[in-house]
Amino acid sequence: MTTPYTRLDKNNAAVLLVDHQAGLLSLVRDIDPDKFKNNVLALGDLAKYFNLPTILTTSFESGPNGPLVPELKEQFPEAPYIARPGQINAWDNEDFVKAVKATGKKQLIIAGVVTEVCVAFPALSALAEGFEVFIVTDASGTFNEITRNAAWERMAGAGAQLMTWFGVACELHRDWRNDVEGLGALFSNHIPDYRNLITSYTTLTAAK
Amino acid sequence: MTTPYTRLDKNNAAVLLVDHQAGLLSLVRDIDPDKFKNNVLALGDLAKYFNLPTILTTSFESGPNGPLVPELKEQFPEAPYIARPGQINAWDNEDFVKAVKATGKKQLIIAGVVTEVCVAFPALSALAEGFEVFIVTDASGTFNEITRNAAWERMAGAGAQLMTWFGVACELHRDWRNDVEGLGALFSNHIPDYRNLITSYTTLTAAK
Amino acid sequence: MTTPYTRLDKNNAAVLLVDHQAGLLSLVRDIDPDKFKNNVLALGDLAKYFNLPTILTTSFESGPNGPLVPELKEQFPEAPYIARPGQINAWDNEDFVKAVKATGKKQLIIAGVVTEVCVAFPALSALAEGFEVFIVTDASGTFNEITRNAAWERMAGAGAQLMTWFGVACELHRDWRNDVEGLGALFSNHIPDYRNLITSYTTLTAAK
Amino acid sequence: MTTPYTRLDKNNAAVLLVDHQAGLLSLVRDIDPDKFKNNVLALGDLAKYFNLPTILTTSFESGPNGPLVPELKEQFPEAPYIARPGQINAWDNEDFVKAVKATGKKQLIIAGVVTEVCVAFPALSALAEGFEVFIVTDASGTFNEITRNAAWERMAGAGAQLMTWFGVACELHRDWRNDVEGLGALFSNHIPDYRNLITSYTTLTAAK
Amino acid sequence: MTTPYTRLDKNNAAVLLVDHQAGLLSLVRDIDPDKFKNNVLALGDLAKYFNLPTILTTSFESGPNGPLVPELKEQFPEAPYIARPGQINAWDNEDFVKAVKATGKKQLIIAGVVTEVCVAFPALSALAEGFEVFIVTDASGTFNEITRNAAWERMAGAGAQLMTWFGVACELHRDWRNDVEGLGALFSNHIPDYRNLITSYTTLTAAK
Amino acid sequence: MTTPYTRLDKNNAAVLLVDHQAGLLSLVRDIDPDKFKNNVLALGDLAKYFNLPTILTTSFESGPNGPLVPELKEQFPEAPYIARPGQINAWDNEDFVKAVKATGKKQLIIAGVVTEVCVAFPALSALAEGFEVFIVTDASGTFNEITRNAAWERMAGAGAQLMTWFGVACELHRDWRNDVEGLGALFSNHIPDYRNLITSYTTLTAAK
Amino acid sequence: MTTPYTRLDKNNAAVLLVDHQAGLLSLVRDIDPDKFKNNVLALGDLAKYFNLPTILTTSFESGPNGPLVPELKEQFPEAPYIARPGQINAWDNEDFVKAVKATGKKQLIIAGVVTEVCVAFPALSALAEGFEVFIVTDASGTFNEITRNAAWERMAGAGAQLMTWFGVACELHRDWRNDVEGLGALFSNHIPDYRNLITSYTTLTAAK
Amino acid sequence: MTTPYTRLDKNNAAVLLVDHQAGLLSLVRDIDPDKFKNNVLALGDLAKYFNLPTILTTSFESGPNGPLVPELKEQFPEAPYIARPGQINAWDNEDFVKAVKATGKKQLIIAGVVTEVCVAFPALSALAEGFEVFIVTDASGTFNEITRNAAWERMAGAGAQLMTWFGVACELHRDWRNDVEGLGALFSNHIPDYRNLITSYTTLTAAK
Repeated sequence: MTTPYTRLDKNNAAVLLVDHQAGLLSLVRDIDPDKFKNNVLALGDLAKYFNLPTILTTSFESGPNGPLVPELKEQFPEAPYIARPGQINAWDNEDFVKAVKATGKKQLIIAGVVTEVCVAFPALSALAEGFEVFIVTDASGTFNEITRNAAWERMAGAGAQLMTWFGVACELHRDWRNDVEGLGALFSNHIPDYRNLITSYTTLTAAK
Repeated sequence: MTTPYTRLDKNNAAVLLVDHQAGLLSLVRDIDPDKFKNNVLALGDLAKYFNLPTILTTSFESGPNGPLVPELKEQFPEAPYIARPGQINAWDNEDFVKAVKATGKKQLIIAGVVTEVCVAFPALSALAEGFEVFIVTDASGTFNEITRNAAWERMAGAGAQLMTWFGVACELHRDWRNDVEGLGALFSNHIPDYRNLITSYTTLTAAK
Repeated sequence: MTTPYTRLDKNNAAVLLVDHQAGLLSLVRDIDPDKFKNNVLALGDLAKYFNLPTILTTSFESGPNGPLVPELKEQFPEAPYIARPGQINAWDNEDFVKAVKATGKKQLIIAGVVTEVCVAFPALSALAEGFEVFIVTDASGTFNEITRNAAWERMAGAGAQLMTWFGVACELHRDWRNDVEGLGALFSNHIPDYRNLITSYTTLTAAK
Repeated sequence: MTTPYTRLDKNNAAVLLVDHQAGLLSLVRDIDPDKFKNNVLALGDLAKYFNLPTILTTSFESGPNGPLVPELKEQFPEAPYIARPGQINAWDNEDFVKAVKATGKKQLIIAGVVTEVCVAFPALSALAEGFEVFIVTDASGTFNEITRNAAWERMAGAGAQLMTWFGVACELHRDWRNDVEGLGALFSNHIPDYRNLITSYTTLTAAK
Repeated sequence: MTTPYTRLDKNNAAVLLVDHQAGLLSLVRDIDPDKFKNNVLALGDLAKYFNLPTILTTSFESGPNGPLVPELKEQFPEAPYIARPGQINAWDNEDFVKAVKATGKKQLIIAGVVTEVCVAFPALSALAEGFEVFIVTDASGTFNEITRNAAWERMAGAGAQLMTWFGVACELHRDWRNDVEGLGALFSNHIPDYRNLITSYTTLTAAK
Repeated sequence: MTTPYTRLDKNNAAVLLVDHQAGLLSLVRDIDPDKFKNNVLALGDLAKYFNLPTILTTSFESGPNGPLVPELKEQFPEAPYIARPGQINAWDNEDFVKAVKATGKKQLIIAGVVTEVCVAFPALSALAEGFEVFIVTDASGTFNEITRNAAWERMAGAGAQLMTWFGVACELHRDWRNDVEGLGALFSNHIPDYRNLITSYTTLTAAK
Repeated sequence: MTTPYTRLDKNNAAVLLVDHQAGLLSLVRDIDPDKFKNNVLALGDLAKYFNLPTILTTSFESGPNGPLVPELKEQFPEAPYIARPGQINAWDNEDFVKAVKATGKKQLIIAGVVTEVCVAFPALSALAEGFEVFIVTDASGTFNEITRNAAWERMAGAGAQLMTWFGVACELHRDWRNDVEGLGALFSNHIPDYRNLITSYTTLTAAK
Repeated sequence: MTTPYTRLDKNNAAVLLVDHQAGLLSLVRDIDPDKFKNNVLALGDLAKYFNLPTILTTSFESGPNGPLVPELKEQFPEAPYIARPGQINAWDNEDFVKAVKATGKKQLIIAGVVTEVCVAFPALSALAEGFEVFIVTDASGTFNEITRNAAWERMAGAGAQLMTWFGVACELHRDWRNDVEGLGALFSNHIPDYRNLITSYTTLTAAK
């Protein structure tokens, strides 16, 4: 009845960013745009921070769906970038799957727009091929709570683990002592409350 | 622990529209009426677009439950139309089950009013007979979020996959290149944000 | 992975109403009191309508928890009524379990206050003894949505089916033709929108 | 398909309070602070009331995360207190696990901040080692409902039971007659509605 | 800057119930139907209880708007009943205004469906003619919160006082000693929490 | 203290549709897009139905703000159409003000995107010049509820009347007998619940 | 158009606590009970802290409304305590008005249960007699948001100033230097987030 | 009855940023922290963009309230910075008022934490001295919606205009042609949806 605890391992994980495109983002209404933008960039930052192989893909970016958001393009200038010519499920694109397999990782951290399609479809396909799949729920967006909840149910039912960017970062890092500064900076840049704690702390200890 | 990924196949799927009747619709309060109407018609449009065999059924339509909404009747003038004399679970009606089986399809896409009864009952019955069942959650409506959530839990627990009309369309279509115009029109007609993207795109590219 | 469809059968079902007491009701804040009262009385009415054996039980009714709400007492003057001297889980009370077993039914329809305790505990105990358990979610109340959701998850995870009074009535009745008047009256008395449909329908057809 | 009913037993349960620190609490935004503080202190009170072995742990308390909230420190002056030097998952800290195992209990009642990390990680680790895990959902807090729901899904999927402090208290106590005063005081101190019931009751009966 | 306190006076007040019709009620979505029905009937009951002259009016009741809800018709068999042949603003109907003026009262308590039309229009007209107008906000319903809030702003800006059925009852009654039983019964019949208080109180004091 | 009742008069009213542009619409998040689109088109339809002079205006439509939504352009092919070269407040554009004044009407019905700028600015300017201003709140959209509420407060404080498209239609029409079919069609096309009432009514009466 | 800024003055203000009774509190559902209890006690604490003359009153406390909550009784053992024999509007009770006037204060800080009756009625009466009235909105509770909003509108329209306990404390205190410890303690006891700030600050500065 | 339209004028406006301190920000719970941070920085950016004289002030910044957030300090290194020694209402601090008057501006744009105290108090004081006051509602935060709404009502009632940072920017700029790039950059940096529009537009037009 229980799923055994499959734990993210920074040496065995890759990140798939699916269809965070300027046009498609106008469809996302289950998370406030300020918060969603922050979450997506936080996920990008953590992928870089942990040196996780990262794969970018877009759907029809020359049409109304629009280009990949420039920030992600800039964060990952060397990453495999698969502009899919038409496949809705990124896993139906051979280049994409090749790129995934080329990473040699068994754990896939997936986020994208919209959740029930661009995230759920490759997640389900990857699960079917034996990958361990971790959904970054708060860096994935969709039309509303109904579409989100239905997507979560389907993915979790198929064995995906539902996570958030903060949980992913913590599970990958394991121990603050591996790098206090680095993880602190990641949190400070993307969690205003955490930044405030650090600001107050730093000010007070500097004042000693 | 996981459900294997059962993927919708346009050659193996049928659509069941259950009890979208003018009277019963006044009971639906878990989705705003403008949005719900749009979702139901979007599901009708996609069924036509993919040429999926579609079956209409109503419960007691000569009484207070009222007639099937005229738009659906017009969309599917040739579809099997089972006005059930009394069975609450459409699957208890032999003509309905015969019509379903006559399609020869193993995948059933179901939507209706109200979710925990008119959708859940035939969905559970179909699952029990070995069909693969896909619930179009956002084209199904009910009294409130408690009744919806209880119905989802029961159906998902029995093996139904919870989807939305947009996810169904995308999973059936597989690849934009199969028909960009057609899928684009479906989205443009039922997703205002998508229509706006297309309007802006078309205007700008036409202006070149 | 799937739970087989266990269908309510009016010849094999009993209703357990647990701790709907005047004092405890002030704890219920996940459903509006007008709606909750209506749901509980609707469940009482349907139990009577389908002649389901019904068992009443209370916890410490001479103390601050207060007496059973008088309406239920009046609806079921002959029902087994177990005023538990202290057991929090009604299933820990031998008289209660005896009364349940004396009904000879294998399907238990349970509602009560509060959901995560007075409903969940006997539901889990009954499941452990092999009963089929159906929770009437909307006639069960608790402190807030967190406590409700946690309770639902625990009960569904243990095999309980989450239902609502309307779904229970429909699944028990099976076919309107068994008694149109009776079921219509039940709905008219407890669903204002349904009553309005009937009022309009009756007025119009009477005017012919 | 079902999880068997594992019932909390006051002779076999320990409480783990993870990272309820003054700084981290500013991250909690899925529960109102007044209510959250009350829930955490209620859990502390019940741990004391039932004499459950209780273990306190903090993450980096000399930094911005801040010290353990003083109330908990005062409630459990003798409890094992593991100030983790860096491990994010408390279960990665040997002293913590030793302290847990030293209790000799097989049932772990866990609450903490934030839910998807400080609660979920040790919960999953403990499940993997065969412990029975009970999450006190309403004494655990996190950034928002998305992060909470994802954490719940992951923990429940791995076999944890989702509970609340009130449910835990009731399941441990079993029978009011074990101590009416004690349990009543616990509820009166942490449930304003319950206190009001007792106030009215006491006033009226005293007036006789 | 301030409106002087105009206090409801049971000797100078009349009640206008505008368009609570079976069809139109399906448009009301800013209040849950169970609660709304209760509020409307509570207003009817208080009008009877205080012997306030009451006027019923409907719009096009032979068409889709449907008949007046039968409960109101039964409560006020002798009341002036103006089935308007077409005027949307009831105040545009001479018979209605005549009936209002025939009461000789200067304070008008108005409720109806929908708020921004059937309530607001006659309220504004009555204010323009110098009446004191009290809106029973919770016995008036409309499409959603936007339409409600806009209507409230317009009416309050024109000098109407926004009240609720409970506030109206209390302001009319002035002193419990005028009739404890009567007012208590009104509250007990329409406020479940109040009924529970009375049940507990009565049970305890009877037990002395 | 009170604003006198200024009533819309179809012979003295003009409609101003401000910046309903394909790009800007992606900023609107205080109303669901399906509902918002419906409300805007309903307002367009009523302007046509009552033959109200209607003025279209856009801001920078060749840039990212995008073109006017095509449906409005098609509804009003002959209407004055002022593509403003830069003025944010439409009232700062002389052509716009000339077009408004050329209508000879004193009552201005205004809707647009976004509420606190494109609607509020010209509304405040028009009020300052002595026009009577009616805001169609539900055909105006903005970023969130905070921005909406602040805008409403500012406009109402300056004397604007807050209305909705339905209220505007009803206040202009005055009496159903002026044209039952026409008003009925407007409502049927834009209020699903009303359409359902008409469908049920028509079916039943046709069946006689 | 503007109300001049009337500022609370600790030498000219009295506090009226109206009907915070154990029974009536079960009616309050517009604020969570944990938070509401905290707000009421915070108001009591600030009244004591600023030595404001405070008047307690109850309605029918020997009946179902129940006794004043004991905490308030204990906080103000010497305060005038008017158990009203029947008047719903406390201002209709001569003893109450005498007690108010005996304070010699012109500024009245009022809170109570329920907002639209027990608070609004005496507030309106006091305004009519020329008092300056300040409503402590978050220490006043009622059935739901509709009843609250209607009450606020009526009171603000009559000239009452809507405040909160925190705002009242700050406006009375004026300058932290008047007593840092005292005000800090008040906030620490009733604002968990503030307490956490103080805990972190104290710990860090003590550690120097 | 109406407030005349007082329009922001970039040559006559100053910005007051009150108490956006790292500690106090943990009290803000009526706006999500990601969004709130963005709004405050957007206000800072617009103040710089329009070269508005800006005044910073803090309350007790050496204590638990914490330092001013560093971003604001960096944005305005030359601005008057009044660290108030104790006055809660910034207007009670002579240096602050002097700094305000030294700007020679009559229009004050105010934002701060928390709304009902740090914003409302100086706003009311400034109004009392004849300034025109514009509240940036979405760059001001407080405990919850009740405290926010009460503060808005009090400030609007005293003549303050409720605005948002976007509305302020638009009203100050007046005409896009004054600087398309500059205003566009401001919006692109702080409105993700606007940035996406610009990204899509730029990509498409660059592709020509």
